[in-house]
Amino acid sequence: MLRNDEKTMEKIVALCKGRGFVYPGSEIYGGLSNTWDYGPLGVEFKNNVKRAWHQKFVQESPYNVGLDSAILMNPQVWVASGHVGGFSDPLMDCRDCKTRHRADKLIEDTGVNPAGWSFEEMSQYIKDHNICCPECGSNNFTDIRKFNLMFKTFQGVTEDAKNEIYLRPETAQGIFVNFQNIQRTTRKKLPFGVAQIGKSFRNEITPGNFVFRTREFEQMELEFFCKPGTDLEWFAYWKEYCKQFLLSLGMKEENLRLRDHEQKELSHYSNATTDFEFLFPFGWGELWGIADRTNFDLTQHQNHSGKSMEYFDQEANERYVPYVIEPSLGADRVALAFLCDAYDEEVVDAEKNDVRTVLRLHPVLAPFKAAVLPLSKKLGEKAQEVYQLLCKHFMVDYDDAGSIGKRYRRQDEIGTPFCLTYDFDSLEDNCVTIRHRDTMAQERVAIDELISWIEDKLAF
Amino acid sequence: MLRNDEKTMEKIVALCKGRGFVYPGSEIYGGLSNTWDYGPLGVEFKNNVKRAWHQKFVQESPYNVGLDSAILMNPQVWVASGHVGGFSDPLMDCRDCKTRHRADKLIEDTGVNPAGWSFEEMSQYIKDHNICCPECGSNNFTDIRKFNLMFKTFQGVTEDAKNEIYLRPETAQGIFVNFQNIQRTTRKKLPFGVAQIGKSFRNEITPGNFVFRTREFEQMELEFFCKPGTDLEWFAYWKEYCKQFLLSLGMKEENLRLRDHEQKELSHYSNATTDFEFLFPFGWGELWGIADRTNFDLTQHQNHSGKSMEYFDQEANERYVPYVIEPSLGADRVALAFLCDAYDEEVVDAEKNDVRTVLRLHPVLAPFKAAVLPLSKKLGEKAQEVYQLLCKHFMVDYDDAGSIGKRYRRQDEIGTPFCLTYDFDSLEDNCVTIRHRDTMAQERVAIDELISWIEDKLAF
Repeated sequence: MLRNDEKTMEKIVALCKGRGFVYPGSEIYGGLSNTWDYGPLGVEFKNNVKRAWHQKFVQESPYNVGLDSAILMNPQVWVASGHVGGFSDPLMDCRDCKTRHRADKLIEDTGVNPAGWSFEEMSQYIKDHNICCPECGSNNFTDIRKFNLMFKTFQGVTEDAKNEIYLRPETAQGIFVNFQNIQRTTRKKLPFGVAQIGKSFRNEITPGNFVFRTREFEQMELEFFCKPGTDLEWFAYWKEYCKQFLLSLGMKEENLRLRDHEQKELSHYSNATTDFEFLFPFGWGELWGIADRTNFDLTQHQNHSGKSMEYFDQEANERYVPYVIEPSLGADRVALAFLCDAYDEEVVDAEKNDVRTVLRLHPVLAPFKAAVLPLSKKLGEKAQEVYQLLCKHFMVDYDDAGSIGKRYRRQDEIGTPFCLTYDFDSLEDNCVTIRHRDTMAQERVAIDELISWIEDKLAF
Repeated sequence: MLRNDEKTMEKIVALCKGRGFVYPGSEIYGGLSNTWDYGPLGVEFKNNVKRAWHQKFVQESPYNVGLDSAILMNPQVWVASGHVGGFSDPLMDCRDCKTRHRADKLIEDTGVNPAGWSFEEMSQYIKDHNICCPECGSNNFTDIRKFNLMFKTFQGVTEDAKNEIYLRPETAQGIFVNFQNIQRTTRKKLPFGVAQIGKSFRNEITPGNFVFRTREFEQMELEFFCKPGTDLEWFAYWKEYCKQFLLSLGMKEENLRLRDHEQKELSHYSNATTDFEFLFPFGWGELWGIADRTNFDLTQHQNHSGKSMEYFDQEANERYVPYVIEPSLGADRVALAFLCDAYDEEVVDAEKNDVRTVLRLHPVLAPFKAAVLPLSKKLGEKAQEVYQLLCKHFMVDYDDAGSIGKRYRRQDEIGTPFCLTYDFDSLEDNCVTIRHRDTMAQERVAIDELISWIEDKLAF
């Protein structure tokens, strides 16, 4: 198995581009800074990640329901949420070479975490430690100023402030503003959660690391509402649930670490926050943020909209604004994590220098669940029947080009867990040979049983 | 069964709001002109529509693969596609009451279709026929001027023309710019198609009719590439395929009509276009546009990007820019069509004035495939076991509140095809009573067989 330090982003990106997982966005026009398009395999893979999340967080959860709210929202939402006032990066220019920098990143690069620092504190630290411009080495910076990270646009005919709206920077607020609608129409009692998958947009100054940080990205967020005082208990519940979710999909525990925020790192309204971090080829990166946000968000919307966000607790016969636990996950980011985790190069025959690239994805995440391979083109018609049977149930590939060995390798590289070879014996025994991606072991299975055989492997 | 003229948008909208299919967007802040949020049932329903499309157009199609390209694209894409120059509405103001109008709409309201007319032709028609302002009755209009329908935003730190980008007004261009990437990485031979589901944005002046026309909407587009000369054949193929797709999901044929464009309506590059129209409560509305766009789009990108869009046809030993057939469908719009089509009010007992509302959705589209109903709260634990078994496979509801009759009606209203009642006999025979939504007929089925029993009903 490939050691972590032998996995590089170059290898992952090359595989993604070469096999149709991810292409650079708008490539024929020279791209558009760090946008990416999911190709034929990527869209299936990412959809599988989203479906797995939906399955565990909505379908199988006795607590949660789904939501799909609009990207364009009334701008008052972002006033109430604090994004208009506070969702900004601290930027400064180098007076000598005219390059622009994030002050917090420059400090982070020295190994210090400036989370929660004021502009003054950051400025002072940069001066005190003589942090210099990474471009030209000068320490002649401008003052730090705020740069709001929301994308602005105009709705309607005129481009004036009245028509100014934003692309949502997070899916969470779509849940909060619908809290009463959802509670009323589902008649759910506390505790219950609302789960949403959708695109968000942040005008980051320095997007990068492939799909790890992009300006347009997809979130999978849960807002779990509970009675004040029970929040830390539920925080622990969801922390464990999220961890099990990743492990059940095959993520290696040694590539995952949980970092509880210290008291001074916490926002003033947060009772607890934990970051899940994954060991990417470029180092540890944040994967999943789980926060106990108390009643901060609902109270903000209650104050700004004038609409009550209280819940009537029949059992306790009291009204209160619920507390909320927020596990917030990036779909692109966790997909990248699964991809990096699964990437392997295996020496099949050292003497012949024979190495295979294999994506050891959980079958439920693999773009194709199986590939049907006729041993000979003469068997094409019968093999097509097997393909036709399976494609009603799963994404299945069909490949009749080249030697069986080459076809196996092509499927290994894209993570197809099972290759089904239709050979001349199949004509007699109505079976195919199943070759396992990970072990390369083979077994004979009846065509009639293939659907349930594969379905069993998709459980997680 | 309810006659079409008894279905009203008021009834559909009320059901959607009342049961959690669709809420007004940003409602607590007074909304944001015609934005909508899909609630817990709506998100499942719409996802089922999208999955059904993916199943037929990607998973089961021997020709097509998927794509998920970015919403934010290099602005040169929209120059090449013609959107920067030509994607605009003809607007004019009433000089007397200062209201703003779409000239083409005013003409359409007289029963004439001005598709393809120049501004001069529209102006002349309005004068000649003395069309007046619908607000104040004056005929004192300004000249018609172009209003580009793309949402503009700025990427990066400064808001200048250099950083100006657009929210995509269609998903199609994401496919065209990736044509070579996809062909290369999938090694597909012509004919093949690329299917994409995703959000698009159009700054419409008059959005309306619930989710029929919204500024933010989701598209399901296929671009099917073929050899020039075979295009009309493939146009006919996809027209029929799309129609069968709708019918297989239970859409009533009498509510669907296909309108072939006449020669003079066609864009200069189009060989054929057909609109699928559905009879909504507000009248016939466009549902699916299927167009033979020849090699227009790929040639535009070839000319603007300088990158070849040619395909090498090994069999014919020639190079050419493929022709394309584009079946383009709105996810929100077709979901609304299925909803309107399925909506029914049935007189159960005329004497008692007993009417049930029932959504006769195809089981594969229904938000819940089944609801588990314990006959008595005493049976809750055992009924929960049935729920736990099923929720690993499907979205299932659990309801133990109120009489069985009331629970049936609640499930009818949201389209749940099967209610599974766990009663005291179930303790003995390990069966449940399945009550069918449409016929209200009942049958006894073994709990062990429920999963495959339900799975069979989801085929389409």
